[in-house]
Amino acid sequence: MSEPRACSVARTLDVVGERWSLLVLREVFLGVRRFDLIHKHTGAPRAVLTERLRRLVDAGVLRRGEYREEGRRPRHEYELTEAGRELRPVLTALMQWGDRYLAGPEGPPLQLRHTDCGAPVRTALICEDGHQLPDSGEGLRAVPRHLASREAGDGSAPRGAE
Amino acid sequence: MSEPRACSVARTLDVVGERWSLLVLREVFLGVRRFDLIHKHTGAPRAVLTERLRRLVDAGVLRRGEYREEGRRPRHEYELTEAGRELRPVLTALMQWGDRYLAGPEGPPLQLRHTDCGAPVRTALICEDGHQLPDSGEGLRAVPRHLASREAGDGSAPRGAE
Repeated sequence: MSEPRACSVARTLDVVGERWSLLVLREVFLGVRRFDLIHKHTGAPRAVLTERLRRLVDAGVLRRGEYREEGRRPRHEYELTEAGRELRPVLTALMQWGDRYLAGPEGPPLQLRHTDCGAPVRTALICEDGHQLPDSGEGLRAVPRHLASREAGDGSAPRGAE
Repeated sequence: MSEPRACSVARTLDVVGERWSLLVLREVFLGVRRFDLIHKHTGAPRAVLTERLRRLVDAGVLRRGEYREEGRRPRHEYELTEAGRELRPVLTALMQWGDRYLAGPEGPPLQLRHTDCGAPVRTALICEDGHQLPDSGEGLRAVPRHLASREAGDGSAPRGAE
């Protein structure tokens, strides 16, 4: 039991758990694809940015393409892979917390909207039966795999305090 | 425009955007409160852990208390503040992605369950009108503040490609 906990949070952090990596992903989610613009919008030092982009490509989160402006040498641009796009809830959850606790007097710099209906979008905890839980996670509990399968099989709701 | 983007993601990352900080929060969410156990479960070096805990307390995410075992000197334990608890969606979103892309043959180590009904819990993108968006964020767009308030006021759904 001296091993660190086996955990999907830790594994995800091995890929994106670093400030610049997450800010790079923010930019690509916002539609910024080119090195120079990502550099400008994140403030990441160029060498760090180069390394982070390479890691995100290696991890299958970003895909690298090429573009060429008239009379210039070819340059790289980046887009999200399917796995990369699925990181959206991570980014929105980070943004939501900052909006709430760190926005300052001017309020949140960006709002997320649903294209279809125009309503603000947020990250929420929901269960498969359709209940929405509070962000604080009240009513949520973590069950280790070996117990989870047993509980799922016996047909009764797991008991337990949180 | 050579300033990095003003953004709630970046501000949140100033507080928790570091691997060990997020793993510390995972432990406290799982009910682990004591330094030695957090150390054991995260694998964070002790000096790093001390510093990260201090930062999280200073940022108002954790609160530090004291406990004393029979015949021993008092020690610290940690609990989430209200602001800390609201980071739950960040942790669940990180976990969810790792479950999906990095779980390996054994499957996810932990399952999140709704205490009331026993159903699995996930992080989802939902809009205020009750629509659920795919994790990939299709149908989601980010609107800068000065445009967001105007769009909110004119009663029409914002158009826009993603």
